[in-house]
Amino acid sequence: MHSDVAVLGLGQMGSALAAAFLRAGHRVTVWNRSEAKTAPLVAQGARRAASALEAQRSAPVVVACVLDYPALTEILDPELPGVLVNLTSGSPEQAREMAARTPRYVDGGIMTTPPGIGDERSMILYSGDQDAFAEARNLLFALAEPVNLGAEPGRAALYDTALLGIMWATLTGWLHASALVTADGSTAAHFTPLATRWLGPVAGFVTTYAEQVDAGSYPGTDATLDVHLATLDHLVHASEVRKIDPTLPRLFHEYARQAVEAGHGGDGWARIIELLRAKAV
Amino acid sequence: MHSDVAVLGLGQMGSALAAAFLRAGHRVTVWNRSEAKTAPLVAQGARRAASALEAQRSAPVVVACVLDYPALTEILDPELPGVLVNLTSGSPEQAREMAARTPRYVDGGIMTTPPGIGDERSMILYSGDQDAFAEARNLLFALAEPVNLGAEPGRAALYDTALLGIMWATLTGWLHASALVTADGSTAAHFTPLATRWLGPVAGFVTTYAEQVDAGSYPGTDATLDVHLATLDHLVHASEVRKIDPTLPRLFHEYARQAVEAGHGGDGWARIIELLRAKAV
Ligand SMILES: NC(=O)c1ccc[n+]([C@@H]2O[C@H](COP(=O)([O-])OP(=O)(O)OC[C@H]3O[C@@H](n4cnc5c(N)ncnc54)[C@H](OP(=O)(O)O)[C@@H]3O)[C@@H](O)[C@H]2O)c1
Ligand SMILES: NC(=O)c1ccc[n+]([C@@H]2O[C@H](COP(=O)([O-])OP(=O)(O)OC[C@H]3O[C@@H](n4cnc5c(N)ncnc54)[C@H](OP(=O)(O)O)[C@@H]3O)[C@@H](O)[C@H]2O)c1
Repeated sequence: MHSDVAVLGLGQMGSALAAAFLRAGHRVTVWNRSEAKTAPLVAQGARRAASALEAQRSAPVVVACVLDYPALTEILDPELPGVLVNLTSGSPEQAREMAARTPRYVDGGIMTTPPGIGDERSMILYSGDQDAFAEARNLLFALAEPVNLGAEPGRAALYDTALLGIMWATLTGWLHASALVTADGSTAAHFTPLATRWLGPVAGFVTTYAEQVDAGSYPGTDATLDVHLATLDHLVHASEVRKIDPTLPRLFHEYARQAVEAGHGGDGWARIIELLRAKAV
Repeated sequence: MHSDVAVLGLGQMGSALAAAFLRAGHRVTVWNRSEAKTAPLVAQGARRAASALEAQRSAPVVVACVLDYPALTEILDPELPGVLVNLTSGSPEQAREMAARTPRYVDGGIMTTPPGIGDERSMILYSGDQDAFAEARNLLFALAEPVNLGAEPGRAALYDTALLGIMWATLTGWLHASALVTADGSTAAHFTPLATRWLGPVAGFVTTYAEQVDAGSYPGTDATLDVHLATLDHLVHASEVRKIDPTLPRLFHEYARQAVEAGHGGDGWARIIELLRAKAV
């Protein structure tokens, strides 16, 4: 084995991963389905493998980052000698299935975009074989802060998708807010510094509510669902008046209304988790 | 005028406002509909007014914080001699209407809960008569950082409701994420520190997208809607498998699908604002 790590897949993300390993001084083998993408990495000092199989035999740790799990399955060496760190996005179920048939398997979820790779403030979530993870860990610091979520192989993918869900919610809530204020002649540039500052207190609320969720008790000590419902009326109204899609505020209004109607008007917003759990459709 | 400021309404929030003025060394007159709530403030050094009218004649700045605008209208002195700072929550339309018939009117939106009053990291948004605001400004520092949004009286209420919309979106996205991870045996306490950390990068995306919103151009340089749509599938699937209400992820999926179908798959998430603006129902 002439390399420290092999990278399979050199798309936008895989190329960033290989480059970060190289910058950290590791010996890197690269492979990509379409060979052209290997050239910039070879120019940075990587070795090009002639096949996916050859790449997987070249290093004790193989990092895979291709489009999806079917693509990975096509190129995976069933006799892979080393540790496989799979950074391809997938569902927790896919990760578990892959772990069941792959020895020394670590699954990962990359919580940044390619420019964030190599930045220690970024994080990558890992779960799976703990001995394999321990073997790869030092190497993985070259990519981002490695966050170990333990032996259950689906956990990194689950946390990944859960965190992305928070991202879509926040981004869409912010876009809706921006649609409102720009409708009245403000700019997103003026509004957004207040919005990002406001995420600080919101993170504080979330931290308080985490204890409530685990305890299954949701006292409305800061703001009650009764108060939320009244102020949600203003948001729905302000959206309708400005002809901004009211679907998102109406959904929140509906959750609050149902909780209040069920007698929980004195509870806080965290009570809504009970509705989310009960309302699978 | 024997006081620096009069506070009308001593509910949870009004009591916190009056107490913060007192702690900052100001002379404070207080009034509340039900008299009992004045006692703790009087014990802290406030003067009790016998009527709402008397309170409004006692100081050059009157801060009102009652349930809603109708309640305020009932008690407001039409000949109010001083500046009125109205921290009662309402819609932008209500604030504008009040400004039209009240001289020296400043509207405000309190972006914290009562325990955050008196903390300089908290913010209160103001808009309205700029001379009146300048007169009250020094006093208002006792409550939180005063953020002046200019002369348009509805702007504080609009930004307030827009920011609350972001809060509901983030809180509900986080509750949905917590429902997912707790379904697989994790705790909210384990997941949430990662979630609050993740809000840092999300605030970074928002800052980037603010420029795109103002420019009306949404290049998918970090992550494209095509990629979002594929990863949204995992979130919808993970929700369904765990019997967690998939309404919120399905809504995001639907926005992404529509934008992709309209030929914007290479754009980033900020493109969704065009759908929000076009889809009023
Ligand atoms: N970009 C991000 O911000 C980001 C963030 C977190 C996670 N991820 C995840 O990282 C993974 C890669 O994303 P990316 O942004 O690098 O995508 P990308 O630029 O589209 O690259 C896709 C890669 O997959 C390869 N591939 C596709 N089908 C294949 C097959 N059947 N056999 C072998 N290789 C195949 C492509 O090879 P060719 O060059 O030959 O087409 C290319 O190397 C995805 O799972 C993505 O969800 C990306
Ligand atoms: N609590 C928060 O976290 C928070 C945050 C931001 C903004 N706000 C806003 O602050 C305002 C007050 O909220 P709060 O939390 O203090 O509510 P609260 O504890 O329920 O107090 C309501 C106040 O309004 C008074 N009131 C109600 N109807 C009245 C009427 N017809 N005439 C005169 N006074 C009347 C009440 O007097 P009585 O004592 O006689 O009933 C009491 O002083 C609301 O607009 C709220 O949206 C609150």
